[in-house]
Amino acid sequence: MLERTDAAAPTSSVDLRKVGAHPDHWYPLAWSREVKVERPFAASFAGEPIVLVRPKSGAVFALEDRCAHRQVPLSKGVVNGDSVRCCYHGWSYDASGRCVDVPYLGKGKLPNGVKAYPCHEVDGLIFVWPGSKPPVAPPKAIGAAGDKSYKTRLFGKIVACHYTFMHENLMDMNHQFLHRRTTGKVFPRYLDRRLGDDWMEVDYAFMRPDQKPPLGEAVIVGSLRGESKSSQDLMTIRTSYPHQSLKFWIADGSPALDVWLGYTPVDKAQRQNRTFIVLSVRRPKISKLLDVVWPVLAWFTNRVFAEDCSIVEMEQVAHDDQGADWNQEVFPPIQDLRKLLAENGDLECY
Amino acid sequence: MLERTDAAAPTSSVDLRKVGAHPDHWYPLAWSREVKVERPFAASFAGEPIVLVRPKSGAVFALEDRCAHRQVPLSKGVVNGDSVRCCYHGWSYDASGRCVDVPYLGKGKLPNGVKAYPCHEVDGLIFVWPGSKPPVAPPKAIGAAGDKSYKTRLFGKIVACHYTFMHENLMDMNHQFLHRRTTGKVFPRYLDRRLGDDWMEVDYAFMRPDQKPPLGEAVIVGSLRGESKSSQDLMTIRTSYPHQSLKFWIADGSPALDVWLGYTPVDKAQRQNRTFIVLSVRRPKISKLLDVVWPVLAWFTNRVFAEDCSIVEMEQVAHDDQGADWNQEVFPPIQDLRKLLAENGDLECY
Amino acid sequence: MLERTDAAAPTSSVDLRKVGAHPDHWYPLAWSREVKVERPFAASFAGEPIVLVRPKSGAVFALEDRCAHRQVPLSKGVVNGDSVRCCYHGWSYDASGRCVDVPYLGKGKLPNGVKAYPCHEVDGLIFVWPGSKPPVAPPKAIGAAGDKSYKTRLFGKIVACHYTFMHENLMDMNHQFLHRRTTGKVFPRYLDRRLGDDWMEVDYAFMRPDQKPPLGEAVIVGSLRGESKSSQDLMTIRTSYPHQSLKFWIADGSPALDVWLGYTPVDKAQRQNRTFIVLSVRRPKISKLLDVVWPVLAWFTNRVFAEDCSIVEMEQVAHDDQGADWNQEVFPPIQDLRKLLAENGDLECY
Repeated sequence: MLERTDAAAPTSSVDLRKVGAHPDHWYPLAWSREVKVERPFAASFAGEPIVLVRPKSGAVFALEDRCAHRQVPLSKGVVNGDSVRCCYHGWSYDASGRCVDVPYLGKGKLPNGVKAYPCHEVDGLIFVWPGSKPPVAPPKAIGAAGDKSYKTRLFGKIVACHYTFMHENLMDMNHQFLHRRTTGKVFPRYLDRRLGDDWMEVDYAFMRPDQKPPLGEAVIVGSLRGESKSSQDLMTIRTSYPHQSLKFWIADGSPALDVWLGYTPVDKAQRQNRTFIVLSVRRPKISKLLDVVWPVLAWFTNRVFAEDCSIVEMEQVAHDDQGADWNQEVFPPIQDLRKLLAENGDLECY
Repeated sequence: MLERTDAAAPTSSVDLRKVGAHPDHWYPLAWSREVKVERPFAASFAGEPIVLVRPKSGAVFALEDRCAHRQVPLSKGVVNGDSVRCCYHGWSYDASGRCVDVPYLGKGKLPNGVKAYPCHEVDGLIFVWPGSKPPVAPPKAIGAAGDKSYKTRLFGKIVACHYTFMHENLMDMNHQFLHRRTTGKVFPRYLDRRLGDDWMEVDYAFMRPDQKPPLGEAVIVGSLRGESKSSQDLMTIRTSYPHQSLKFWIADGSPALDVWLGYTPVDKAQRQNRTFIVLSVRRPKISKLLDVVWPVLAWFTNRVFAEDCSIVEMEQVAHDDQGADWNQEVFPPIQDLRKLLAENGDLECY
Repeated sequence: MLERTDAAAPTSSVDLRKVGAHPDHWYPLAWSREVKVERPFAASFAGEPIVLVRPKSGAVFALEDRCAHRQVPLSKGVVNGDSVRCCYHGWSYDASGRCVDVPYLGKGKLPNGVKAYPCHEVDGLIFVWPGSKPPVAPPKAIGAAGDKSYKTRLFGKIVACHYTFMHENLMDMNHQFLHRRTTGKVFPRYLDRRLGDDWMEVDYAFMRPDQKPPLGEAVIVGSLRGESKSSQDLMTIRTSYPHQSLKFWIADGSPALDVWLGYTPVDKAQRQNRTFIVLSVRRPKISKLLDVVWPVLAWFTNRVFAEDCSIVEMEQVAHDDQGADWNQEVFPPIQDLRKLLAENGDLECY
């Protein structure tokens, strides 16, 4: 009978699942469409409640989602011009977090306000800078969402696992076995990797031995491949800390598929992340074709994503049960990725 | 960008939300109507399970709700004359908690019994003295419930917050903004306060700038105000540790509204309280009128209470998240009240 | 007023509810019918996840239910001949737990495998030996399940309590008061007990003063008693650590009723056990009669079992609330049983 040997026990001094997402970055907190005019929206970053407010005129702003008085959520409050008023005793805060009114106090005596967060809206996403360092310039574009030669789908959900499981899931394409019922048999072949301080890229070639891709995939790929009869399908997965992207080429030129993924920790223990996916498909020559197969493609990507969510949530459950990271990684790119995530993460959040 | 300053951090050495309700007082544990003849009723005080038993004849009595044998609830048992028999092996206890029968043991060998609590029933409420000191005389009347010139409503529920949030909610009438959709615009004006060792009172005048009170309120207030055209509406909120009352005068004489409120901690951590409200409205000259509008008044008071429950429960959630009391109180009567609750509370329950 | 005296406080240095079921025994983990061909079945012993695999040919085998790679359950995987393949990256394990394939690695580099458990199937139950000592010979028969002169019913469920409550519940027949509504008035009379190192037996005589047993019981007992008009009904309850049995004689010879009970801890804290009951009734001369009343007997035994589950779960709740074992046992056989369970249990599991 085999017993787990000591060799399989966790040896690293750092448990990657207890490394926080580093707050000195821009993180997506909500889709633009979720934050309606004068309807405060409750979001969060790693257990910090954050309210997003879109006034009638002017940019969305982000405040700590707690009234300075009795700590109840400002997101339950009322927007008044450029400020948000707490629903309880009516204390009011402007976009900088300053308390600008307490109805039953003189203006001279106004108390402390609440924390405000740098906030930026781009390509349908609202980003916040939760860290204490001064923010760097916010992202100017998200994947190919702003490129009119692509059609883009925004989707995602709260996934009950640490964000690092998401990075490893996508980067290790050997997990195609998980999707066997959805994608059919696909054999990825690892080609190469490139590595920087806060980024890495892995290239895969894709082979499909039985040549019967599922419908959605077949139509789009066929259409995009066009005259180029090269079967040199190439995929590059990239982690640019803290976000990820996947690009897939089926012909020369710009990628047929361009996916951007953001993982924002929800709770303080970071055992949940909200995954934001910006999936862009290059429009084929007959652009209408893409619109026609779009529902199939949506169904297909939802299903693949659901399979991934289900397995990473099982990984989190295992980690909670085992109380430590027992992963036994044998694939070098993932060993590199784990090192990168640990080095760029926040070791002090626990 | 504003950050929370150290000035806003909790400074008090005592976290009021971790101060227990002092057990050496009479606390309501159930409505009389809930404790039916020979149907043991499961109640609790701060995590101590207590069974209330109403025999066919004689007064309700209160015992620890655990059989001395295997600790299962006596409230699942059977009433036999003046005693209650455990449902499991049939051990039996009288009103003093003494074990009076074990069916399979000789009478000479009867084991230890269970704890009994002083118990008193008045005006539709069953009170228990959970403390270890000898009980003081129990209350003789609850609000105006026994006064025939009033009509009384008994209501309440388990609220998922520490009892101190209830006291502060009621005492600080500046929270009328919370009820804006139910009561319309109401401006309370703080007048005065009086303070004793274990009680305090705050007076407010009420102004309604747009003079359009909602229906229920309008009918009753109009009827009660009668000939007295004084608009000197006066409200007094009182905390008589550990209970509270609210009295509202719209004319001279006895109050138009007399509300008594008891908050009994349910669980050991006292993060839940069962709120008992005895709301009495003085009968107007045309006494039938009150019966007619009673359903409207019930709807109105339920809704105001629901709004209050919702906000105090958010306060508790914030306290749980923050792990400390970050309240930044600026209103002097509430600063006094917090001191009073801390000084009269049980500092050793944690 | 009586207070709980110190005499009632827990005095034993060992809290029986924190003594683990000793792993160096054979424990039932599943009914045979639950483990279908090539459908891995997720079970557990005291928080250790265990997958049971029934290949197309060959015996059921048991492995740790975690892939050595990323710790996700092998029970979500796919059976391939004599091995089970993880659903994520396709790592594969044989019945000994050895890793026999990683699709993207050379055969020479195969990593560590997973723990395997001795496994044995008998009389409709699958047993596993979770301990570290070499296993003793597995049981050859379970109660009277293999005896054709009996008809057998397999039932049970996960009960939310420590397994020791189950042993004490069955052994102390003075708890018939609990079943008064199901069985009518029954008076057990304690006769004798016998005691060994890892077993004990208690004998009871049964009297039914009002002579009106419920239907199911009446028919079967009447049929089995047959010509023997002796009313010497005898019951023997036995704990053979870690399992239990109940035998009931209504005439000379083999027992009319033969019940075997196994309690397998589910979670790490062992606050849940899966109870497996093998209930065998001796076929009367007119064997068909038993088949006819079988549904009534099933209803009757389900109901008695449900009453027992309900009370032992209340005992667990009381223990969780009190944080210690406050039981005040007065019945000598149960005092013996508690000693036996403590001495044979696993004191190091907490």
